[in-house]
Amino acid sequence: MKRRSLFVLFSFLFIVLSAQKEGTIVIDDAVRQHYRQEILIPDIPGYVTLKCDFHLHTVYSDGSLWPTVRVSEAWEDGLDAIAITDHIENHPKKMPGQKRAQYDVALPSALTANIILIRGGEISRSMPPGHFNALFVKDVDALDLPDVMDAIGEAVKQGGFIIWNHPGWRKQQPDTTKWWKEHDEIYRRGWMHGIEVFNEKEWYPEAIRWAMEKNLTITGNSDVHDFYENYYDQGKYPVRPVTLVFAKERTEEGVKEAMFARRTATLFFNNLVGRKELIEPLIMRSIKVEPSHFHEDGYAYFSVKNLTDIEFTMVKTGTDKSELPERTVLPRRGTIVLRAKQPKGQTVSYTYNLENVLTGVEQYYEYRITVK
Amino acid sequence: MKRRSLFVLFSFLFIVLSAQKEGTIVIDDAVRQHYRQEILIPDIPGYVTLKCDFHLHTVYSDGSLWPTVRVSEAWEDGLDAIAITDHIENHPKKMPGQKRAQYDVALPSALTANIILIRGGEISRSMPPGHFNALFVKDVDALDLPDVMDAIGEAVKQGGFIIWNHPGWRKQQPDTTKWWKEHDEIYRRGWMHGIEVFNEKEWYPEAIRWAMEKNLTITGNSDVHDFYENYYDQGKYPVRPVTLVFAKERTEEGVKEAMFARRTATLFFNNLVGRKELIEPLIMRSIKVEPSHFHEDGYAYFSVKNLTDIEFTMVKTGTDKSELPERTVLPRRGTIVLRAKQPKGQTVSYTYNLENVLTGVEQYYEYRITVK
Amino acid sequence: MKRRSLFVLFSFLFIVLSAQKEGTIVIDDAVRQHYRQEILIPDIPGYVTLKCDFHLHTVYSDGSLWPTVRVSEAWEDGLDAIAITDHIENHPKKMPGQKRAQYDVALPSALTANIILIRGGEISRSMPPGHFNALFVKDVDALDLPDVMDAIGEAVKQGGFIIWNHPGWRKQQPDTTKWWKEHDEIYRRGWMHGIEVFNEKEWYPEAIRWAMEKNLTITGNSDVHDFYENYYDQGKYPVRPVTLVFAKERTEEGVKEAMFARRTATLFFNNLVGRKELIEPLIMRSIKVEPSHFHEDGYAYFSVKNLTDIEFTMVKTGTDKSELPERTVLPRRGTIVLRAKQPKGQTVSYTYNLENVLTGVEQYYEYRITVK
Amino acid sequence: MKRRSLFVLFSFLFIVLSAQKEGTIVIDDAVRQHYRQEILIPDIPGYVTLKCDFHLHTVYSDGSLWPTVRVSEAWEDGLDAIAITDHIENHPKKMPGQKRAQYDVALPSALTANIILIRGGEISRSMPPGHFNALFVKDVDALDLPDVMDAIGEAVKQGGFIIWNHPGWRKQQPDTTKWWKEHDEIYRRGWMHGIEVFNEKEWYPEAIRWAMEKNLTITGNSDVHDFYENYYDQGKYPVRPVTLVFAKERTEEGVKEAMFARRTATLFFNNLVGRKELIEPLIMRSIKVEPSHFHEDGYAYFSVKNLTDIEFTMVKTGTDKSELPERTVLPRRGTIVLRAKQPKGQTVSYTYNLENVLTGVEQYYEYRITVK
Repeated sequence: MKRRSLFVLFSFLFIVLSAQKEGTIVIDDAVRQHYRQEILIPDIPGYVTLKCDFHLHTVYSDGSLWPTVRVSEAWEDGLDAIAITDHIENHPKKMPGQKRAQYDVALPSALTANIILIRGGEISRSMPPGHFNALFVKDVDALDLPDVMDAIGEAVKQGGFIIWNHPGWRKQQPDTTKWWKEHDEIYRRGWMHGIEVFNEKEWYPEAIRWAMEKNLTITGNSDVHDFYENYYDQGKYPVRPVTLVFAKERTEEGVKEAMFARRTATLFFNNLVGRKELIEPLIMRSIKVEPSHFHEDGYAYFSVKNLTDIEFTMVKTGTDKSELPERTVLPRRGTIVLRAKQPKGQTVSYTYNLENVLTGVEQYYEYRITVK
Repeated sequence: MKRRSLFVLFSFLFIVLSAQKEGTIVIDDAVRQHYRQEILIPDIPGYVTLKCDFHLHTVYSDGSLWPTVRVSEAWEDGLDAIAITDHIENHPKKMPGQKRAQYDVALPSALTANIILIRGGEISRSMPPGHFNALFVKDVDALDLPDVMDAIGEAVKQGGFIIWNHPGWRKQQPDTTKWWKEHDEIYRRGWMHGIEVFNEKEWYPEAIRWAMEKNLTITGNSDVHDFYENYYDQGKYPVRPVTLVFAKERTEEGVKEAMFARRTATLFFNNLVGRKELIEPLIMRSIKVEPSHFHEDGYAYFSVKNLTDIEFTMVKTGTDKSELPERTVLPRRGTIVLRAKQPKGQTVSYTYNLENVLTGVEQYYEYRITVK
Repeated sequence: MKRRSLFVLFSFLFIVLSAQKEGTIVIDDAVRQHYRQEILIPDIPGYVTLKCDFHLHTVYSDGSLWPTVRVSEAWEDGLDAIAITDHIENHPKKMPGQKRAQYDVALPSALTANIILIRGGEISRSMPPGHFNALFVKDVDALDLPDVMDAIGEAVKQGGFIIWNHPGWRKQQPDTTKWWKEHDEIYRRGWMHGIEVFNEKEWYPEAIRWAMEKNLTITGNSDVHDFYENYYDQGKYPVRPVTLVFAKERTEEGVKEAMFARRTATLFFNNLVGRKELIEPLIMRSIKVEPSHFHEDGYAYFSVKNLTDIEFTMVKTGTDKSELPERTVLPRRGTIVLRAKQPKGQTVSYTYNLENVLTGVEQYYEYRITVK
Repeated sequence: MKRRSLFVLFSFLFIVLSAQKEGTIVIDDAVRQHYRQEILIPDIPGYVTLKCDFHLHTVYSDGSLWPTVRVSEAWEDGLDAIAITDHIENHPKKMPGQKRAQYDVALPSALTANIILIRGGEISRSMPPGHFNALFVKDVDALDLPDVMDAIGEAVKQGGFIIWNHPGWRKQQPDTTKWWKEHDEIYRRGWMHGIEVFNEKEWYPEAIRWAMEKNLTITGNSDVHDFYENYYDQGKYPVRPVTLVFAKERTEEGVKEAMFARRTATLFFNNLVGRKELIEPLIMRSIKVEPSHFHEDGYAYFSVKNLTDIEFTMVKTGTDKSELPERTVLPRRGTIVLRAKQPKGQTVSYTYNLENVLTGVEQYYEYRITVK
């Protein structure tokens, strides 16, 4: 049944309820409703917090789906910006004679769905130096050059933003996560702008260290080849892994400016990694401690609210007589009640490490709870 | 294993993560996390919107659970106030010799969980006049009087708020939903303050009519006897049926004042019923129409955001050339994109009936979408 | 990351658990496990019951995914046989210059997964005569002929099995479900072997009537263009719509023989439609009534077990004094206990219509419960 | 609303679909369907495999629900036998003046639902010797004796089966899981018949060792105080922790005979623990290896079917050139396809440890896969 145009532009954006027709019985509830659900992560003072995935594949390389699907997935999942980054090198094998059309095919869907679509591609070589995403480029075909340095150089010439992808991928770095002399060369030329701290289902403490030491933009991306929902268990982790971009405005130019200015973090399966100066204002708007609502037998009872879609794991630092729990969880969009042994009418502070929030390798963000 | 105090006061309010012990292996993830999730329904100008269930049973009549469970359920489900309203009449049959202790047993849990617990009971007689809830009373034992008018009168004397429960319950009103002369008498004396428009899993258009004509407070309550989650399918309808109370403050006194002032509505399984002057400001804060983000070939594309946990069903009223969908759904916390055929740069309005929002019998709230 | 070969042959068939690598942290539980789940529908005496979907699309016409995905979906969902039936006519528009490779691309996956892959295509014309699937053909390219009768004739010449697809599709039959003179012509030539009683999310009582009157093979197929799970709500209906084929053996030849011999039925969202001589033995092996396990006060209590993945809706026929429920549901793989007022020690029978089982238009299968 | 009798006997056993009444609108789908789902675990030669929970609490001690709920939960969850084992000691505190009625209250539900209800109680003392369940006793009140040895002795005199509960519970055994001299005394008198290897959410390797060395009956029980589904995450682990009893018949006498004869095992969250002579025939009927369905390039492809509700974790033992996965998972009721490098036409065997199946402390059951 030819029920869809070749390029699905519009029909995924809302639900049309059926009217029954004489002689045809429609079972509407067998079909899923599609709609956008925002990811609840607050803006920080001066910037909007955009949720982005800069590493996606389609049938135009070794992915298993048509480019428009990447837009509809992103729209449903609450993303603001995506890049379809099919491998430059293995493009023609699967569909001989086809042009690299992934961006053009997806663009009409992106415009109607209000998703920022960034042109890009993945330069995919053996290690060293491995794989690199080139974002914001103008002509992806021009990146198809035999020498990897030529390819990266061409991307930079086009104004591209270069990310070293999955630096600890075991297939390319089986024993250690190593920075090769080839990476020194790329870095020295100013061609390595960012790095993936997270990719697909794994993350790399070494990459966090390099990002901090060498001042690289932190990113985390899905690199998904399948349908998103078929690959990941969204029942377990409802929020997609994303690069958080703290942008001046929700536009492609806004994303680009923030990326080059290194105003990013990454969130993957409740783990949040970023520079402390960006993480701190984000957390300040993420958790709310209410004044105590009840006091009895020397204990104050108070609520702690999580205003986000990130589950926080809290571990007490220091010792005191409060009898607060040593380890607890603050579920996404959830509220818990804690009980602290403290005198009525006094204001007391306690500190917890957020074990899922890293501002460096093994550096947990310390959160202060102040109870009135 | 005696692992809980007899009166569970505190331990349900947060999650303690286990530390493994030598020789004992703990499977923490087999156990559910419990925490509060707020119901997303906006306040209206001048009032906070409290979510309440004024009709609940426990083992102190024919329910199947201990009163503290009603508090932990309410806390988890995002309620603000509840009343445990065990049947006055059949109390002693199940636990001979026991006192009516439901309120006192549940109170410590309510204080720690910050749930407003309202003292009450259900006067449960055959039809006419049927069952009545008495809320905010001081002494439930004193309501155990042979004559139903005496019982209601005693409740009123104690300052009680009286609700006619499930007026269309088929077991008591098998053929029609009838207003008997006995109800006239109760009403004439000023003893009938409110009515259940919704009860358990059914609702009564007749009760909406009476509420509007006779100026009764609208309520809707679960009347649940089982564990809440065992009885209802929360996978299908995540939000509990509630009486919405538009109160000056989140206190028992605030609830009581609003109830007598008839500032209520009821929400049950996405159906919202209330007086137009309260529904209108609620809807104004519930749905947000964004300016169009894209215009092409004479069509404007724009987002409609649902800021609540209520799923709205929209049905177009009137005819126009916009090609907007005749029927669509605005899912809870969801965003849809609509496409209207309208000239670029113009502002045009369209009207939809919200088929799940009633301001009277078969009176749907008409919502205006204005597209820039 | 180039982590998959171009043609995914093997890796979807089981789960490999990760070993952690120094410097790389793998979050295994973020990723879904994939495995096959059989659909529980019994064989009937003399035949195996195969679950088949004969109408599927891919990027080789207007579908949104690569052909191998259709195999992995079918394997996971418990199917035995599928046909990828991309539209003959609109193939070249989407990928200019590409060959019709859907069958050849999918075949290696099918062989490793033990899925019977049937070569086919959809001849897709305006009404009359509409769309037709040609199955078991040898050369799909040869069906690309301007005249629809030539196209169907070529398919028949190749040994093809011809199905009239979605005869009541509102886009082609907006007002009624009509049998045109063109269908008479196809039927007269012996070219119409089967008909879709169900397609995608709708079904056609007229098609049931024609199947019975004109002795056509009954089919029901998904016609899915999207990723299966993205389109259908498998939380609501875990079993895919299928054509049930009662075959002598689980081979392509077995499927073909049974299709031409009309030994089929269709199951869609708990609705089962087929000829009575096939439905009866299927139901006999689907439901089991246990002897009563308890008798008290003149009532016998007994279990009714559903041995299948089909939910049955039972409605009592006739009247008696048993006090059995008038309407009940027998959930999939579930057991219910019923209570019948009947003398101890006697054996009594009761009849229920299975409202979800049709052996003709509005002809429900009548099931006899015999209680000992 | 008094819609239930005080003792719910029957109504939970099936679903009655509503007929709409004039003036009352029923929202049937807001309410959950309740029905029994069998746990798929095979019988072994000569015995039926009964699924039992011998440790449950209600409001008659420190549980939070009415005894009938324990029966309806067990029926839904596919259990065959349960014991309600309220603490002997703290009974009267919660409901002063109430009799110990848990068994009598629950019995009518058990009879109608065909659940074997075993009379019992928990003798609950500080360590040593801790808590003991007494099953199959005649008079629970008579166990309420000040001296713990008197209490156990009385239970034995009544024909009771005695289980040492949660021997490694950290609250009573904070540092180690210790066998005290008091346990020696109980054991020496022949009064300790069984032991809990699993309780609630934890298990005790020491208890496995003692069970094997001292020839105690292996049990595992939930000890649940809450509503079952509220406490455990049944989305994650659909099968309840159970004691498996290999009985000659499905009767109370059958359970008792098997318990005293030590023909038991325990299954908790996919972990299966038991004696090898019982585990072996169970596994033989649990997993089925199909002959290879495809052979290419020196690889045989074959299916492995899990016929149970237990998820098996398979880890390869020994080394070979088969290239079979080192670690994989065989999901419940699921099928996986494996690929072994082996010559066409030959039959080869491979061995895997089932890491979730223990026949002793750190003794995994070794499973042999034979591929034709």
